[in-house]
Amino acid sequence: MKRTDVTEMIVLAKRKKKCTWDDCAKVLGQSKEWSTAALLGQMTLTEEQAKNIGEYLGLPADAVDCLQVVPYKGSLPTAVPTDPLIYRFYELISVYGTTFKELIHEEFGDGIMSAIDFKMDLQREPNAMGDRVSINMSGKFLPYKTY
Amino acid sequence: MKRTDVTEMIVLAKRKKKCTWDDCAKVLGQSKEWSTAALLGQMTLTEEQAKNIGEYLGLPADAVDCLQVVPYKGSLPTAVPTDPLIYRFYELISVYGTTFKELIHEEFGDGIMSAIDFKMDLQREPNAMGDRVSINMSGKFLPYKTY
Amino acid sequence: MKRTDVTEMIVLAKRKKKCTWDDCAKVLGQSKEWSTAALLGQMTLTEEQAKNIGEYLGLPADAVDCLQVVPYKGSLPTAVPTDPLIYRFYELISVYGTTFKELIHEEFGDGIMSAIDFKMDLQREPNAMGDRVSINMSGKFLPYKTY
Amino acid sequence: MKRTDVTEMIVLAKRKKKCTWDDCAKVLGQSKEWSTAALLGQMTLTEEQAKNIGEYLGLPADAVDCLQVVPYKGSLPTAVPTDPLIYRFYELISVYGTTFKELIHEEFGDGIMSAIDFKMDLQREPNAMGDRVSINMSGKFLPYKTY
Amino acid sequence: MKRTDVTEMIVLAKRKKKCTWDDCAKVLGQSKEWSTAALLGQMTLTEEQAKNIGEYLGLPADAVDCLQVVPYKGSLPTAVPTDPLIYRFYELISVYGTTFKELIHEEFGDGIMSAIDFKMDLQREPNAMGDRVSINMSGKFLPYKTY
Amino acid sequence: MKRTDVTEMIVLAKRKKKCTWDDCAKVLGQSKEWSTAALLGQMTLTEEQAKNIGEYLGLPADAVDCLQVVPYKGSLPTAVPTDPLIYRFYELISVYGTTFKELIHEEFGDGIMSAIDFKMDLQREPNAMGDRVSINMSGKFLPYKTY
Amino acid sequence: MKRTDVTEMIVLAKRKKKCTWDDCAKVLGQSKEWSTAALLGQMTLTEEQAKNIGEYLGLPADAVDCLQVVPYKGSLPTAVPTDPLIYRFYELISVYGTTFKELIHEEFGDGIMSAIDFKMDLQREPNAMGDRVSINMSGKFLPYKTY
Amino acid sequence: MKRTDVTEMIVLAKRKKKCTWDDCAKVLGQSKEWSTAALLGQMTLTEEQAKNIGEYLGLPADAVDCLQVVPYKGSLPTAVPTDPLIYRFYELISVYGTTFKELIHEEFGDGIMSAIDFKMDLQREPNAMGDRVSINMSGKFLPYKTY
Amino acid sequence: MKRTDVTEMIVLAKRKKKCTWDDCAKVLGQSKEWSTAALLGQMTLTEEQAKNIGEYLGLPADAVDCLQVVPYKGSLPTAVPTDPLIYRFYELISVYGTTFKELIHEEFGDGIMSAIDFKMDLQREPNAMGDRVSINMSGKFLPYKTY
Amino acid sequence: MKRTDVTEMIVLAKRKKKCTWDDCAKVLGQSKEWSTAALLGQMTLTEEQAKNIGEYLGLPADAVDCLQVVPYKGSLPTAVPTDPLIYRFYELISVYGTTFKELIHEEFGDGIMSAIDFKMDLQREPNAMGDRVSINMSGKFLPYKTY
Repeated sequence: MKRTDVTEMIVLAKRKKKCTWDDCAKVLGQSKEWSTAALLGQMTLTEEQAKNIGEYLGLPADAVDCLQVVPYKGSLPTAVPTDPLIYRFYELISVYGTTFKELIHEEFGDGIMSAIDFKMDLQREPNAMGDRVSINMSGKFLPYKTY
Repeated sequence: MKRTDVTEMIVLAKRKKKCTWDDCAKVLGQSKEWSTAALLGQMTLTEEQAKNIGEYLGLPADAVDCLQVVPYKGSLPTAVPTDPLIYRFYELISVYGTTFKELIHEEFGDGIMSAIDFKMDLQREPNAMGDRVSINMSGKFLPYKTY
Repeated sequence: MKRTDVTEMIVLAKRKKKCTWDDCAKVLGQSKEWSTAALLGQMTLTEEQAKNIGEYLGLPADAVDCLQVVPYKGSLPTAVPTDPLIYRFYELISVYGTTFKELIHEEFGDGIMSAIDFKMDLQREPNAMGDRVSINMSGKFLPYKTY
Repeated sequence: MKRTDVTEMIVLAKRKKKCTWDDCAKVLGQSKEWSTAALLGQMTLTEEQAKNIGEYLGLPADAVDCLQVVPYKGSLPTAVPTDPLIYRFYELISVYGTTFKELIHEEFGDGIMSAIDFKMDLQREPNAMGDRVSINMSGKFLPYKTY
Repeated sequence: MKRTDVTEMIVLAKRKKKCTWDDCAKVLGQSKEWSTAALLGQMTLTEEQAKNIGEYLGLPADAVDCLQVVPYKGSLPTAVPTDPLIYRFYELISVYGTTFKELIHEEFGDGIMSAIDFKMDLQREPNAMGDRVSINMSGKFLPYKTY
Repeated sequence: MKRTDVTEMIVLAKRKKKCTWDDCAKVLGQSKEWSTAALLGQMTLTEEQAKNIGEYLGLPADAVDCLQVVPYKGSLPTAVPTDPLIYRFYELISVYGTTFKELIHEEFGDGIMSAIDFKMDLQREPNAMGDRVSINMSGKFLPYKTY
Repeated sequence: MKRTDVTEMIVLAKRKKKCTWDDCAKVLGQSKEWSTAALLGQMTLTEEQAKNIGEYLGLPADAVDCLQVVPYKGSLPTAVPTDPLIYRFYELISVYGTTFKELIHEEFGDGIMSAIDFKMDLQREPNAMGDRVSINMSGKFLPYKTY
Repeated sequence: MKRTDVTEMIVLAKRKKKCTWDDCAKVLGQSKEWSTAALLGQMTLTEEQAKNIGEYLGLPADAVDCLQVVPYKGSLPTAVPTDPLIYRFYELISVYGTTFKELIHEEFGDGIMSAIDFKMDLQREPNAMGDRVSINMSGKFLPYKTY
Repeated sequence: MKRTDVTEMIVLAKRKKKCTWDDCAKVLGQSKEWSTAALLGQMTLTEEQAKNIGEYLGLPADAVDCLQVVPYKGSLPTAVPTDPLIYRFYELISVYGTTFKELIHEEFGDGIMSAIDFKMDLQREPNAMGDRVSINMSGKFLPYKTY
Repeated sequence: MKRTDVTEMIVLAKRKKKCTWDDCAKVLGQSKEWSTAALLGQMTLTEEQAKNIGEYLGLPADAVDCLQVVPYKGSLPTAVPTDPLIYRFYELISVYGTTFKELIHEEFGDGIMSAIDFKMDLQREPNAMGDRVSINMSGKFLPYKTY
């Protein structure tokens, strides 16, 4: 049993149980953003989290084991994503990538925004012209050091 | 003269003038995020904006012309970016792409977050453990329609 | 069971039943264009639509479930399609892509034609020199906004 | 002088003259769709057309010559286009490609829609919810023959 | 059952029966070139042809059904073929591609040689220096039209 | 001066002189197929051939020199050609590649059709339904040997 | 059963029997180089060779059949090999490719070294500084011909 | 001035001087194989070798300098070579790659044939059926070590 | 049974036994670095090592056999790794690759650092600002030789 | 003037001055590893460092300016490097990538070794069997956090 098999099991179990990712997040005691990523095979669960979600979704013992192992990360089948929703994020990097770079360097100097010491929050933003998706990302700035 | 030539001119002129992207944004009368993207060849300026920035940075008339034409967008030289700062954003899509998808569909149903009717705001977030980069993205949700 | 398994099931069931996509569209109560895309794994069905088509084609309960979940979209096995019929559409973009861009920008300014708020209609166009395929596409224009 | 040089010249000359593609099309005596494609380096002009447009845009004799030679076609720099407007058309093929295939075969049997014996018409479609881009494509159906 | 499964079945059945593609072609009542392509999953059979070859090779009913459906075409596993025999044809296009283009345009003007309204004939050409493979290709010329 | 520069020079000179590839072939004393390939940078000329064509097209001495050196072959800018005329040949390999393989092996056993000891002839084939492009290819069969 | 299945069977059977490729070559009555290539799915066996090796390694009748069919050649999973031993050969082409080209053309004129009418011999070359791998390749020179 | 510029200069100078690679090798006092690779930008010359060849071919001082710097190696423009002569070597790896691997491991155990402590010799092998290219490669075997 | 199957078996068995790679290394009598690579399918075990680890992890006889065969090396599913931990090493090569090259050549002249006669050691480096990963790599320098 | 132009200038100036990277490092007052990376276009210099090295190597004022701007990082022309020295590092990741991953996770849990808060040291390691390249890498461990 590989982690991708566990992910498929979880998606199936969630569909049958008709629960939401938010429900799963409550079982894990974490945000819905982190929890969804974890259950889709990108993060590592503690033993307790794994047991709780295993019980909640009815996963076999082997799957519960597997959720506690650090996974080989990367959730997409191709380098350039084909799904329109995910592609739009890729397009944002294509169009705004050099903008991110210039503005972060202007503010902080040479370095990066961490994708590890990172958190995010995704919300519905009501709007008379049509509701909007609002995403807040926060990543620690890590400066390059000279040595 | 092509838009990529104009971008190179602008980067050079800005370096010589030792001004910031924020200074340029004030000349354009827009946010620093949109302005940087525009000056890096991804957005279209009005005649007035083009004239103002042309005067401010000392661009030739042909470049001022060129800034008013809709550009062929895409600011990166490779499909998977090599620059560490920009790669981190690509990594976020690789790791969190399916999470974005699941959470947006859970909240809104089938559709996408627009990358066109979109705005963003990038700020320094002071933090005792090391300052953080904070990015707010807001894009209109566009539902797939049946017909 | 994954959505691609359901698509394969539907193609098989349709072949055995010797019905058309148009017949299926009537069961779904939508156009033949949208219905075919949906049944080939690109759109999401309502519970009622899923039950009706499930009954019509004799699909198992799990497949009916699966049709109501937003799919990971993208129907082709390679970035450049090998099938001659589908390749011709890719060729049209390769040859006419910059033409689409110039004419839409000339008419509307900077922005895109939505592929989400989009519909199409495909018809036979009788012609003495050999009948023609006629395709009408209609997508909402979405302007880039400054901020 | 290569055809890509001539295309660049034309784009520049048009920008300076502040004329539209539609104006150019009138000079050529053809539709704006075919004319734009031709002037962007995808179609071949007759001697008369080349002379007229050369005079109108002030092109050198060598460029006028060059416009009468069949070009190496293909207007995009990458296999998957990065420009958002053009990408949307690519996305339509990715999502609807197998739908095009099924519906054309259902109506006509095995064969293709020609991308050579082809014409198209692009119009603004006024709409209270926001104007739409309307594209009509018409291509001759070419059946595979047995032998 | 997918068309690729049927192709594999046919290859196996032919090997067991120790018949030739030419024998199969006689059962189909078509040339050996078209018949081989069809049985390798690239062309569509009529009901009668499918029944005859099904009986001849002992294929199951489902496979006979499947042969009457228009296949997703493309017979090779990689964009640049690795098999030496097939690669030689790819090499011919790489070396002679622009020659084909120039000579066809010199003779016919702008347009293409159809790969749909196309037939071919492959023969042994006896030669004292070593026999040769002789291939005759004939495709309808399709001119680009102005509109 | 590189061979690609010489090819560009030849294409330009031919356009100015308004001669055909067939005219050039007569100067070289070879077929129009081989001659076009050679002048497009794929074959090596003898000293005499190089001088004759150099004189005929008015090429500089360095170019005449260059034509006598074996070139790095390959005439196309991308692995999958974008030009519709050349793509059709690529499509033929994609669709008929395994057919070529099976029929040649059925007739000759394991081996290949040489792309080196190879010649071809391209003609117009008059036809009431529309003239056709007729291509004859002849390549020596080379058997794999055991050792 | 496909040829790749037969290759896997042979590798397994050889491991269990603890015999060498050289032993297998003796059963086939050919060199160890050709025999290994053949048993790894790249060459075609005669009926007698197939029967002998089938008996020697205990292969099923279907596999023995399969070994007599010309295979789709190409033994590596990626265009650039990842295995260090095989990569070194790829590196030799990358570094010495143009050297091979220049020296062969200097000696023979335009043409190629055949990879079909080809044989090779791989030996251990004892050496005080560490033994060496010695490979002798011999391929017929095939000249390009004019026509 | 970059090493690729120097390579181009050398090819040009050699063509003008009408000397052979073998002549150049004598000037360098090394084999024709190593010398050709070095002059095509893949190896590093000593100061004396660089001066001698610079004088012989009439290279500028800067080029003589440049020949003494270790180059960024790799002589081919694409991952899969398009030139037929060089491709045949790539094909040998594709077809015989796993054979090389098996036979070297059978003889030596786990490790590689060095592409650094390597030499080769390329000769004409006279043969009544047509002369052959004979290549001798000798590379030190390097065993993987446990630690 | 293929080596990748054995790797998957080992990962599973290790997870069930809740032992570490270090424990496995002790069973093999080698460093944890070499042992982990070996058990992940990149190195070859002796008969004794294979038996010991087979007994320790409860592997079937066939797997024990398989571990003694030289594997086809390469442990990653894509040319550019998607896993963030592994990507950072790829990034180091992207950023520092030319630095490695310059400094090694400055110290040693033309040649390489062997990846075969190579060992490494990975340790935790305690640090008040956050512990660090410390990696020591040691590879024999192999000089290019002239001949 | 772009950073890549400055890099080329520096390489040329260093060759003419016959100084080492170590000499340059002393001018910058940093380690030879960081300094080489910086001068090859991967790191950002302070105003003082830029002036000092500019004076030392005789760079124009514009280049001195340019060295103080954060560069678009990535020093290699292809995703898989062709240069043998650099490729060996890529091979280490290919072979040992999953080993790095397992051992770091075993020691530290889920997270990465930073490539930003990173330093390295490259030394000659004298050895009777042939000197070795010794590389010490030290990167801060960054744990994934839950939120």
